Amino acid sequence: MILGKVVGDVWSTKKKEEVNALRFLFVQPFGKNLTLKEELIVAADEIGAGIGETVIVTQGAPAMQAFKRDNLLPIDAVVIGIVDSMEMPE
Amino acid sequence: MILGKVVGDVWSTKKKEEVNALRFLFVQPFGKNLTLKEELIVAADEIGAGIGETVIVTQGAPAMQAFKRDNLLPIDAVVIGIVDSMEMPE
Amino acid sequence: MILGKVVGDVWSTKKKEEVNALRFLFVQPFGKNLTLKEELIVAADEIGAGIGETVIVTQGAPAMQAFKRDNLLPIDAVVIGIVDSMEMPE
Amino acid sequence: MILGKVVGDVWSTKKKEEVNALRFLFVQPFGKNLTLKEELIVAADEIGAGIGETVIVTQGAPAMQAFKRDNLLPIDAVVIGIVDSMEMPE
Amino acid sequence: MILGKVVGDVWSTKKKEEVNALRFLFVQPFGKNLTLKEELIVAADEIGAGIGETVIVTQGAPAMQAFKRDNLLPIDAVVIGIVDSMEMPE
Repeated sequence: MILGKVVGDVWSTKKKEEVNALRFLFVQPFGKNLTLKEELIVAADEIGAGIGETVIVTQGAPAMQAFKRDNLLPIDAVVIGIVDSMEMPE
Repeated sequence: MILGKVVGDVWSTKKKEEVNALRFLFVQPFGKNLTLKEELIVAADEIGAGIGETVIVTQGAPAMQAFKRDNLLPIDAVVIGIVDSMEMPE
Repeated sequence: MILGKVVGDVWSTKKKEEVNALRFLFVQPFGKNLTLKEELIVAADEIGAGIGETVIVTQGAPAMQAFKRDNLLPIDAVVIGIVDSMEMPE
Repeated sequence: MILGKVVGDVWSTKKKEEVNALRFLFVQPFGKNLTLKEELIVAADEIGAGIGETVIVTQGAPAMQAFKRDNLLPIDAVVIGIVDSMEMPE
Repeated sequence: MILGKVVGDVWSTKKKEEVNALRFLFVQPFGKNLTLKEELIVAADEIGAGIGETVIVTQGAPAMQAFKRDNLLPIDAVVIGIVDSMEMPE
């Protein structure tokens, strides 16, 4: 998984029907020393993460397992947790 | 998912039979601050995205779930939504 | 998918049995402005792409769907189309 | 797989229910000559890897196979081994 | 797939039980012009590749199909062939 900061929202009305109810967030991944990387991904969120929060994002095929639906959704990134604290001894 | 701008079309007549009816778009991904990255991917589109539009693209295994077919298609990138608006408070 | 140029062939006699009959090509991906990137991937080909041709390559789990076999093959990149023409208005 | 060094812990209380019992580690991948790369990933661990240890991390869809559960978990990186020794002749 | 050079071995005794019998190799991928990239991956090997040999490595979900086992293994990179010769006309 990657760790990222929620930095925005994306709205789309013309969407694949099966993802219509999902909320899409902009997430900026953290790199080494927990500095933000020059990247931007879009992740689905059903937990209710807010702007500025640090989240754990699962990518790829495993992201599909985060949704309780009859069929697998065409979603490749999803917020699976909101981070309370981190510890990096070194 | 990634956010990208539709920048072109790709035509191919000699194709794997199962993907024959699909439309292929050139999509240039957005990076941080929503500036376009020096990358170029090819995504299938069944929504009808036009040149210049900003789209949400799902990649990898989840992309296969976007097509209502009897068999899974060998497609690793698909447009799942056309973006209306974005908000990045910071 | 990515767009790439076929730049060579790879031969291997000591192979996993299930991929024995496949032809492996060197493909160099295109980046922005359709300039070749400093990368090199190996893709299986059943369409018959030739050196110098521009091809559409599917990667990851979806690549496995391109082969009509009883079992899924351990192949993560496959040529799904040979490109006739491209259009990038801007 | 990648080889990485365990450099920290990540705690999250608001999580997808199905991953609630998992421990999440910060892992910094090794690059060439076994120097640490400027990257940081989050991997689930059920082996009990400690800070400073070198681990083998499986990513993507195969990571889901590391968990003995009734359903596949939305986890894309997992520690599958703790490294005892490495040998690079050149 | 990628083409890489076998550059070392990785030993781990504390491992996920299902991957216990596997041999893990360090593989350094080739980039353009067949120069070695500044990367290092760990791939499972059942073919018997030796140090210094050039191999074809399958990554991601397709790597799981290379093992004849009752269950899928949490392995995301595997040697599927040892290269005899390569040809890059240009």
